[in-house]
Amino acid sequence: MQLVQSNQCFQGEQRIYSFDSVSLKTSSRFGIFLPEQALKGQDCPALFYLAGLTCTEETFAIKAHAQRMAAQLGFILITPDTSPRGDEVAKGDHWDIGQGAGFYINAVQEPWAEHFQMESFVADELYALVLAQFPICSEQVGIFGHSMGGHGALTLALKYPEKFKSVSAFAPICAPSQCPWGEKAFTHYLGADQTVWQAHDAAALIQSKGALFQDILIDQGLSDQFYSQLNPALFREACIKAGQKLTLREHEAYDHGYYFIQSFMDDHLQFHAVQLQS
Amino acid sequence: MQLVQSNQCFQGEQRIYSFDSVSLKTSSRFGIFLPEQALKGQDCPALFYLAGLTCTEETFAIKAHAQRMAAQLGFILITPDTSPRGDEVAKGDHWDIGQGAGFYINAVQEPWAEHFQMESFVADELYALVLAQFPICSEQVGIFGHSMGGHGALTLALKYPEKFKSVSAFAPICAPSQCPWGEKAFTHYLGADQTVWQAHDAAALIQSKGALFQDILIDQGLSDQFYSQLNPALFREACIKAGQKLTLREHEAYDHGYYFIQSFMDDHLQFHAVQLQS
Repeated sequence: MQLVQSNQCFQGEQRIYSFDSVSLKTSSRFGIFLPEQALKGQDCPALFYLAGLTCTEETFAIKAHAQRMAAQLGFILITPDTSPRGDEVAKGDHWDIGQGAGFYINAVQEPWAEHFQMESFVADELYALVLAQFPICSEQVGIFGHSMGGHGALTLALKYPEKFKSVSAFAPICAPSQCPWGEKAFTHYLGADQTVWQAHDAAALIQSKGALFQDILIDQGLSDQFYSQLNPALFREACIKAGQKLTLREHEAYDHGYYFIQSFMDDHLQFHAVQLQS
Repeated sequence: MQLVQSNQCFQGEQRIYSFDSVSLKTSSRFGIFLPEQALKGQDCPALFYLAGLTCTEETFAIKAHAQRMAAQLGFILITPDTSPRGDEVAKGDHWDIGQGAGFYINAVQEPWAEHFQMESFVADELYALVLAQFPICSEQVGIFGHSMGGHGALTLALKYPEKFKSVSAFAPICAPSQCPWGEKAFTHYLGADQTVWQAHDAAALIQSKGALFQDILIDQGLSDQFYSQLNPALFREACIKAGQKLTLREHEAYDHGYYFIQSFMDDHLQFHAVQLQS
């Protein structure tokens, strides 16, 4: 694990690390915010944040405006890249597939299967790495994300509730089996058999898994330019059927970008603080 | 004035406008954050923020993390670009001169004089434009900035105290006549006569102008990689001689970047709120 960059920030440190990933078979970077408490060696709660299409491990640190509240709450924030990258890694035909668009699943189709193992990367490899390397309270780890990363957060939380004790999302892709982005990604990465897709679709998963969390928080802008890709109503219906409490907040005039995310970031961090303490 | 972009943000709007500037003789962009109060037509205090070398009108909105507190205080934030830009505008040999490096002065030397009129642009043209177009309380306008823009904020406040009623800076170039960045810029834009430079050097200006502000706030990181360019001690000495109160805060471990700026942004906005109300 190599330290690429470190900047003092709200009495903590915003860092970027690089390491050779076994699951991605390439070098990968992640960002981490360590509050002052962590720098002093105190065990802290931690949140994984999964970013959306085209983003990198640095997007969150620059644009999401989370460090102030994370410093106040004593949260460690971990931000993986959104896919494997590099010349040896397959590229897509467009920004919604391939590099920058890993969808947080393990690909089984060629040419993706060799490197695109983002589910194992986040939930197993990076999870184990940061818990071993940083002072994280293993009982207080949550996950959140945006758009494609909101899909990632919801699905990984539902798949690994023993690892992620709280979950929230900004404008998540709630039912990837039923929107163009998801259909394209799942066809490329998983193949044409749509029954396989259900294990990676939050709206479908919540029905098969049932209620696992005390609450799930989702914020959604009503001027979101990608609203038709997101299907929050399908997730709400599925939560009702499953008996899963969902706090779905819809906000007039907000769009899909980080000006929306920063506006509600404090609420998400405080939501996780409450969930992880209960 | 053309609206280029608008994003809902903390119940206000973060916008970018473009307009044909008379002083710059080219089209120029500026960013503006309008809090909810301004969108409702209420007169608001306003701050101009001048960014540093290589930055644009968008850097502040993305990286400075100011909108949350600005929304709370009801501040309008105006962020000009750092120079004229375009194919018809002279380019420099390096990132510290020419486009992205206007130094907030009016150039008199060729090839710069035609477009590089950043002092007139900010203090006259853009100032008049935003006061005419947005609900700004003309008695409550302040200025702040970072690095080259900290130099800009200090010098424009000292030159135009009737326009800017409060001033603060992050890691400003305090004595450009006495550092490599400033010497290069002033030689290019103003010529070799160093007596001319004194009118555009904060440490020199404060001595000729005397005490004009109730207080000036400067934050400076002590791990700033450009510390040798900044000379806060010279400005402090000059303030003492001039009888100008200065709150110079030095912060261990912080560097020159926006992770430093965001860490102390709330303090600056609150400082201006106090100054502009008194």
